[in-house]
Amino acid sequence: MRIGIAGLGLIGGSLAQALGGHHEITGHDIDRGTRDLAASAGIRMVERLDELLPADAVIVATPVAAVLPTLATLAPRAGVCVLIDVSSVRAPVESFVRGGGGGTARIVGMHPMAGRSGSGFAAADPALLAGRPFLIVPTSTADAAALALAGALARDVGGVPTVCSAVEHDRILALTSALPLALAVALSLTASEAVGDLAPFAGPGYRDTTRLADTPAELAMALLRSNAANAVVAIARLRTTLDELERAVAEQDVAALRDLLGRASAARQALR
Amino acid sequence: MRIGIAGLGLIGGSLAQALGGHHEITGHDIDRGTRDLAASAGIRMVERLDELLPADAVIVATPVAAVLPTLATLAPRAGVCVLIDVSSVRAPVESFVRGGGGGTARIVGMHPMAGRSGSGFAAADPALLAGRPFLIVPTSTADAAALALAGALARDVGGVPTVCSAVEHDRILALTSALPLALAVALSLTASEAVGDLAPFAGPGYRDTTRLADTPAELAMALLRSNAANAVVAIARLRTTLDELERAVAEQDVAALRDLLGRASAARQALR
Repeated sequence: MRIGIAGLGLIGGSLAQALGGHHEITGHDIDRGTRDLAASAGIRMVERLDELLPADAVIVATPVAAVLPTLATLAPRAGVCVLIDVSSVRAPVESFVRGGGGGTARIVGMHPMAGRSGSGFAAADPALLAGRPFLIVPTSTADAAALALAGALARDVGGVPTVCSAVEHDRILALTSALPLALAVALSLTASEAVGDLAPFAGPGYRDTTRLADTPAELAMALLRSNAANAVVAIARLRTTLDELERAVAEQDVAALRDLLGRASAARQALR
Repeated sequence: MRIGIAGLGLIGGSLAQALGGHHEITGHDIDRGTRDLAASAGIRMVERLDELLPADAVIVATPVAAVLPTLATLAPRAGVCVLIDVSSVRAPVESFVRGGGGGTARIVGMHPMAGRSGSGFAAADPALLAGRPFLIVPTSTADAAALALAGALARDVGGVPTVCSAVEHDRILALTSALPLALAVALSLTASEAVGDLAPFAGPGYRDTTRLADTPAELAMALLRSNAANAVVAIARLRTTLDELERAVAEQDVAALRDLLGRASAARQALR
């Protein structure tokens, strides 16, 4: 298939490289340096966004703030082309589509649960996507064929697609993405304010638990702000559990502590 | 030097392998299978704990519950041998020494900030220790020579030693070890109870932030229970910061959110 990709950063660049073996890829990025870098990596690049059309699908992998404007630009000329965006919060896209901003264009979310420190095309790597969950999220204009296409692309890059609604996506992501981010941020602030220089003391456990505190600022803002209501509920739930754990520690309630640790460990092991 | 190692699990086994190139190593483990495994990896093993003496130093790297009994067994016959234990909470050891349980034996803590999923000699790996902080913690019987010896061993395995008091160690570790554990446990419980099967949704961020929930139960219990007072203070500090973050999210206070995320990110980046 002919696949366009708008935005050749960490995710867009990784998708372009991973899909290159399966499809005819054309890329666009508003940054000239990124265009040159991607072109020198063998990706066919175009200078204008609308040159990505016609295509069977265009994947919108721009920074968060540019997703809706990019969809709005592509939609009127999309025709049968499926527009796929990788936004990590779905409510704004669904609201844009319901408001008619995407016209009749079929718009589908494809959210790869992939990431790392580092950003931009230079950090892109197809290995980032292999084996990762890909959440396929319909909007009100998406049909079964559009969902199937997004699922097939996810599988082409080694991902594991799961279809869920925008509401379900945002509720769950508040727990698996916004909440870990909030905890990493709170831990990094708490420990650094109490200790100062942590380098002489921080082992791999501290480093792993705080890694998300180094999420690029705009992405972190979007994860928390665009999904604020769900994030607040998730933080409240977490606080209840943390209170329970704290009580067990403070009161040396060994049975309760053992039970909490055992259930947490079992849940974590089920993820392996 | 002649170095004995009691307990050839993840940490003791890694130390034995890493020190083998520099020193004459003798190991002991109460588990016969571990003794055989370590012996087949080329480590000289003895069947009885007291056969580790005489030596220049004995490193006690047993499970938490066995550390004080092991020190109590070795101390009366230690003579000039320095006893080094890797306990991750120092107050119980300091209290044991002050209570006379170690006699006049020079006892020093050497706590490597190293760990991973997996346990036992089979998971041991000298690479686990390279570049890691090693906290060197005197007890009331330790002299400068004993501290220097522990520091030298830390450097021999590629570690970065820092000397701190038992009180300081336990206060800081509550923030860098007990608190990350508590958050990983609370997050694993909260998300799994709210979502059920997380496999279709969990990316590397969620996995990293919850990794410590899979800490072996006895170690997790010890980190929280033996350091309970400091852990409770650390959780209270964290809660204050989390409340601040939650308020900024709930009220869409962009300036406050940006400030919190910026400071957390800067603190995390300082660790690289």
